[in-house]
Amino acid sequence: MNSTEYTCFLNGELADLVSAKDRGFCYGHGLFETIRLTNANAPLWRYHVSRLKSGAARLGIPIDEQLLDQYCDQLLEACPANGVMKIIVTAGSGGRGYRVDASSSPNYLLQWFPLPAYPLEHWQQGVALKLCQHRLPSSPNLAGIKHLNRLDQVLARSEWGDDYPEGLMLDQQGNAVEGVSSNLFYYHAGKWWTPSLDQCGVAGVMRQYLLDELLPGLSLPVQEKTISSEELLSVDELFVCNSVMGVWPVVSLENCTNWIVGERTKQIQTELQRVLSCFG
Amino acid sequence: MNSTEYTCFLNGELADLVSAKDRGFCYGHGLFETIRLTNANAPLWRYHVSRLKSGAARLGIPIDEQLLDQYCDQLLEACPANGVMKIIVTAGSGGRGYRVDASSSPNYLLQWFPLPAYPLEHWQQGVALKLCQHRLPSSPNLAGIKHLNRLDQVLARSEWGDDYPEGLMLDQQGNAVEGVSSNLFYYHAGKWWTPSLDQCGVAGVMRQYLLDELLPGLSLPVQEKTISSEELLSVDELFVCNSVMGVWPVVSLENCTNWIVGERTKQIQTELQRVLSCFG
Repeated sequence: MNSTEYTCFLNGELADLVSAKDRGFCYGHGLFETIRLTNANAPLWRYHVSRLKSGAARLGIPIDEQLLDQYCDQLLEACPANGVMKIIVTAGSGGRGYRVDASSSPNYLLQWFPLPAYPLEHWQQGVALKLCQHRLPSSPNLAGIKHLNRLDQVLARSEWGDDYPEGLMLDQQGNAVEGVSSNLFYYHAGKWWTPSLDQCGVAGVMRQYLLDELLPGLSLPVQEKTISSEELLSVDELFVCNSVMGVWPVVSLENCTNWIVGERTKQIQTELQRVLSCFG
Repeated sequence: MNSTEYTCFLNGELADLVSAKDRGFCYGHGLFETIRLTNANAPLWRYHVSRLKSGAARLGIPIDEQLLDQYCDQLLEACPANGVMKIIVTAGSGGRGYRVDASSSPNYLLQWFPLPAYPLEHWQQGVALKLCQHRLPSSPNLAGIKHLNRLDQVLARSEWGDDYPEGLMLDQQGNAVEGVSSNLFYYHAGKWWTPSLDQCGVAGVMRQYLLDELLPGLSLPVQEKTISSEELLSVDELFVCNSVMGVWPVVSLENCTNWIVGERTKQIQTELQRVLSCFG
């Protein structure tokens, strides 16, 4: 394990292996966070922690926040100041079948990876989205959580190779929900919107930051809403976002070249660069 | 690792740890089989292999059947002749995010566990089912596959403790689909039925064996069908089944004590004992 390529700690020990009985491995009973590190700082840290805690409560995983902090500090000390920190917290080992053993305690896995080399043109000139055929199932109890059951994303991502930087995922009813690894915002009828995630999808921390802070800070109204993929074609501006890549304007959806990199999206990118100074 | 309590091989080596980069751990990109061993023999072996192969094809995992056979023989030689063999096959390590790396190859994990100590009365006097509140999502692309994304079962199983031996799971529309760890059959209007699994659920090998061989062998007609949980209350006989526990008659669903251990269910149990000689 070379610290400039990959480093991994399990419960505070340098280790890259997990038990074959870990419930994360057996059932996907766990959560993850993918966190952009800039000068040993995670700009959206409290959003990541907040999501991890709320996901853990929904999956019955008793996270020890103090321990988590300690493990994060350990990774930050051992690794380069810029990169991606991935946190995986599982329900631990043990239990009879699907049933959790009351005595099992969470496992904390922290990994460091170099930052992906995203082309600057994705940020500047926008991206084309693949329209994925694989659709997200409706599951209110699991909607929004960044859990380890990610076969939907794996199947969607397997639909193309290098042709597209990102794909758009629909639900079973044909509504636009999110990108395979990102969330979606669009400008239409005088305001910003983002798909509701009460039935499916992952509630990204960048999405939450834009909803709670950045857009309100610019006095831009924004609202959650269900939108069909057909309706999406008539919106004015569209972008995908996550905490590692920032904001990428969308210029086309599969064969429909519908959009330009609009001024409203540029305004959000500029503000994001100003406040978090790590994108673009 | 004591061979009478637990033994684990990874790709032919005695090992109980998997890489933290394994796609089974990161995304649940893998499959499993839980196989009852009786005198070093797996009675429903070809059903297990057939399901593993079809699931692997659907998840893009290129299984090497010869290698798998070799690893199974290795486990059978090293472990007691009676117990449970669990096979986990994952898509291997590597890839960029959700995208699979073309060069990654599957990991084969084989575990031996002692047979669970099921009370004989479950078989003889029947069981009470918990009616689970957590519902299965509709996802045709993943329906039927015994993959590693099992949060639905984990959440359902977390709804009760020791009060019930098994729980009934419904889909989002309120149809009865399966037990948390088993499949469902019922007798109604002169024939046997089992819920269709084209939208959700796991297609168990015992279910398949009953559908393909045992019931036809007794000249008992059987058909797949969608049934609501309300309709289920008016059926004549009901049982749950899987390849480890066999066939358990159902006598009640939560607070509704509706059934007795019927002669038709007993006929199936008797035939199962006669042919596979390992249940009851």
